[in-house]
Amino acid sequence: MTELRVVTSNPDKWLEISEILGETGVRCRWVRMSLPEIQSDDLREIVEFSAEEAHKRLGGDIIVEDAGLFIEALTGFPGPYSSYVYRTLGLRGILKLLVGEENRGAVFRSVVCMVTEGGEKIVAEGEVKGVITREPRGSGGFGFDPIFAPAGAGGKTFAEMTRDEKNRLSHRGAAVRDLLRRIVGQP
Amino acid sequence: MTELRVVTSNPDKWLEISEILGETGVRCRWVRMSLPEIQSDDLREIVEFSAEEAHKRLGGDIIVEDAGLFIEALTGFPGPYSSYVYRTLGLRGILKLLVGEENRGAVFRSVVCMVTEGGEKIVAEGEVKGVITREPRGSGGFGFDPIFAPAGAGGKTFAEMTRDEKNRLSHRGAAVRDLLRRIVGQP
Repeated sequence: MTELRVVTSNPDKWLEISEILGETGVRCRWVRMSLPEIQSDDLREIVEFSAEEAHKRLGGDIIVEDAGLFIEALTGFPGPYSSYVYRTLGLRGILKLLVGEENRGAVFRSVVCMVTEGGEKIVAEGEVKGVITREPRGSGGFGFDPIFAPAGAGGKTFAEMTRDEKNRLSHRGAAVRDLLRRIVGQP
Repeated sequence: MTELRVVTSNPDKWLEISEILGETGVRCRWVRMSLPEIQSDDLREIVEFSAEEAHKRLGGDIIVEDAGLFIEALTGFPGPYSSYVYRTLGLRGILKLLVGEENRGAVFRSVVCMVTEGGEKIVAEGEVKGVITREPRGSGGFGFDPIFAPAGAGGKTFAEMTRDEKNRLSHRGAAVRDLLRRIVGQP
């Protein structure tokens, strides 16, 4: 593998993923492209479908990532539909849905799928537990970052962290590092 | 065309569609099957994808339908993800999101796609405007029916109507009748 191609239409995702890969010395390149996604409650199924599609279009050594915020008091909502919900309801909608809820627990999950030249699929996952804050804080990151405070970070939201700090704690960082461990384990 | 096969995993949809078709003398049969759906803000794109998938699996003269509730004050949410949002947030979540909103306007949209033996695709659409009620009413229908009152029905929700009454007013009824007009227009 000489170079990994990261297929995403989201520049923020590319920045995060390329920095994590960069630290480990893996060369990568951005392919800015929207891929079809299926509807499913299972993030892994969604990512595998999109990665296969990317492989059909672009050939091998590509990776695709998808993430979702699963809020306990909302039966896992918005989950795999986080980007749609961010665009329509926004942070304000999520905060409104949690008015009067005692339980503000949530999990950010990320799934990364690589497809090799030979068509082999390698799937990795990462997650981080935390809480939904009472109000948005910070201007870094993207999506629901201003209202998600990961456990063990002194109450800071993802949007109040540098990219490097977020990468060390985040679901996406964990998933990409898990992928790298799996690739190294490959023949 | 001897018989239309209606492909859906939802028994309520089947009941509604078969009654509308039945009135016009079109013979139909239920194929109870879950089809893959793509993520898109465009209902039409979602239905065409699923109908092509149904055609690959089952051959011709199939129809697939999908619908969504588009709420004005929520930027069209839940739209194409209505069934996921119904399962996670429920009626209660939608009502909570509208607390304090003056504008309770909403549109129910339905898209029906038929694929013929020869692989021709015929797409029809229907919609009905109405309002989101302050509380759920009625036990008929399914999904968001108890909180949607179509315009011109004296404030009754879809869930307070008989199936026949709902079919005459509904987005789904309009879409299926539109499809039948198009089929009759075919050579």
